[in-house]
This record gives sequence, structure tokens and C-alpha cells, in this order.
Amino acid sequence: MSQRAFQDAYPDDLSHCFGCGKNNPQGHQLKSYWHQQEHESETTIAHFTPEPYHTAIPGFVYGGLLASLIDCHGTGSASAMAYKMDHRELGSVPALRFVTGALNVSFKAPTPMGVELRLVGRFSQVKERKIVVEIELSANGVLCVTGQVIAIKMPATMQS
Amino acid sequence: MSQRAFQDAYPDDLSHCFGCGKNNPQGHQLKSYWHQQEHESETTIAHFTPEPYHTAIPGFVYGGLLASLIDCHGTGSASAMAYKMDHRELGSVPALRFVTGALNVSFKAPTPMGVELRLVGRFSQVKERKIVVEIELSANGVLCVTGQVIAIKMPATMQS
Repeated sequence: MSQRAFQDAYPDDLSHCFGCGKNNPQGHQLKSYWHQQEHESETTIAHFTPEPYHTAIPGFVYGGLLASLIDCHGTGSASAMAYKMDHRELGSVPALRFVTGALNVSFKAPTPMGVELRLVGRFSQVKERKIVVEIELSANGVLCVTGQVIAIKMPATMQS
Repeated sequence: MSQRAFQDAYPDDLSHCFGCGKNNPQGHQLKSYWHQQEHESETTIAHFTPEPYHTAIPGFVYGGLLASLIDCHGTGSASAMAYKMDHRELGSVPALRFVTGALNVSFKAPTPMGVELRLVGRFSQVKERKIVVEIELSANGVLCVTGQVIAIKMPATMQS
């Protein structure tokens, strides 16, 4: 994809997240992108292939990993949306970075191993300090997990 | 602790979970125990010290890991409660193993790095096929995260 990933636009000192930070070599390094950008029907997308050890029970992916992917795709999508609403270039300073206030995940079907997972996010609420992202995670075209990320603009006290 | 961990009583073929399986050397190997066993006020406990790379932003623990710990402490607690309700010894066959139907996590305060985390679970609903566990995660005595795990008895189709 020629787009820059949302997470790759985070400032270097805020890029250590285990789930999606480009500066965390041991992490998952999830990358999220715009999927559709039409006004009021924006969606975001990410793909991830779990490692064989990300097992729940043999053959199925560990729910904690799926929750993590939803979390990072949600906060990344929130950041990108905040830049878009501000008519600012992704990654321009001061950074618009979001943290998770709440994460709600519903496991609809067991997620099979050995398949690239697809996460699509859409926005159910967009305010300056709070953005809610609804995420569907599917494998082989089958919806496996739905999630909601209530993303809160990162308080200045958490930024160095 | 002289008690056997709930997760160590899972059958070998259901002990590969990345979050808590004793047969997953790359995983977190979370261990949950009874904390208090009085009838109708049972609580469960687990401790975990994150690795330095489990970062969210520098100094704080990655929310995906916290969600994962809550998930595994919840399903482990559900399994132990199911054995207790059945008046059966933990780990006796046929296994009483639970999977996550839904996981709801609320981040109340940033979770500091370099500290042992403490998870305490209590039961808000106990039925044969559905057990709901409410979990509080604290660091240095400060409540950082609350979570709810809706645990569903593992369908026979998921067991080998």
C-alpha cells in the first residue's frame, strides 16, 4: 500500500507500543490504513497474521491477541480521524495520539489459525477528545470478533 | 503458594493458550488461584509482572496485555468455579474448560511499568454454561483497570 500507516506517523517517543509501535522490535507492529475516506462513511483497515504460538486452544487464535489488535487498530484509527477532522497532515506536530478508555470485545466465532486476519474500523462517535471506533475482525471472510474502542485524547501528563 | 494453579489443571491438550497455557513456553503463563473460598463471596487472585517490552507509551503497560491477563484470569476462574459447583476436584475429567464470549475492559488509570500487578476476580453470575467474572487489576495498591469476562462453557466442537 502506498499510504503511510497511521502508527508509523506517531512521534518516535510515542512509538514503543507492544501492539503497534514501529520502535518495538518485539511487538506486533500492527499497521492501520484508510480503507474508505468518504465523509461520514470513513473506514480503516489493518491486516495481521498471528504466529503459531498465539494459540488459544490448538487450531484457534488466542483471544487476548485479538483484543490487542482491536485496541491498537482503534486508537490508530482515532488518531488518523483526529488529524482528518483538524485538516492536518497525519503525523504533524503537536501529535494527536489517543489512549484506550474502554475496550469491549465480543467473540462471535472461533478465529482459525494460519489465516491472515482483516480488521475494518468505522467511527460511531467523533468528538475532539473522544472518538469511538467499531471494529470487525474477520478470517477467510467470516466475521469472528467485533470490538468497540472508546479512544480518549492522550492527556498531556502521559506525554514526555 | 501450595494451591495448584487453575490453569495447571487444564488437560495437556487444552494447555497451549498464549496467555496461560503451561505448554506454551513463549506465552505469559498466567497462574490463577483461589483467594477466598467462602460460599457466595468467592474471589480468585493472580499476579503478573510485565516485561520491559510490554510498553504502551514509555513508563506504562500496554493495554492489550492487561486485557489478555483479565481474559485468562476470567476463564481460569470460571473453570475453577465450575468444578467447585460440581463438587469435583480441579482438573478431573471430563474437563470443565471455558472460553470467552465477551471481554469488557475499562482503563481507569495508566498502569505503571516495573511493578507486580494483582488481579482479583469475583463472580457476578454462575450458571452451568455461563459464568461472569468481574476483575480488578491494581498496581501498588492503585486500581488501574476493571474488566468483565463472560465465560462460556467450551463447546464440544472445540475440543479435540
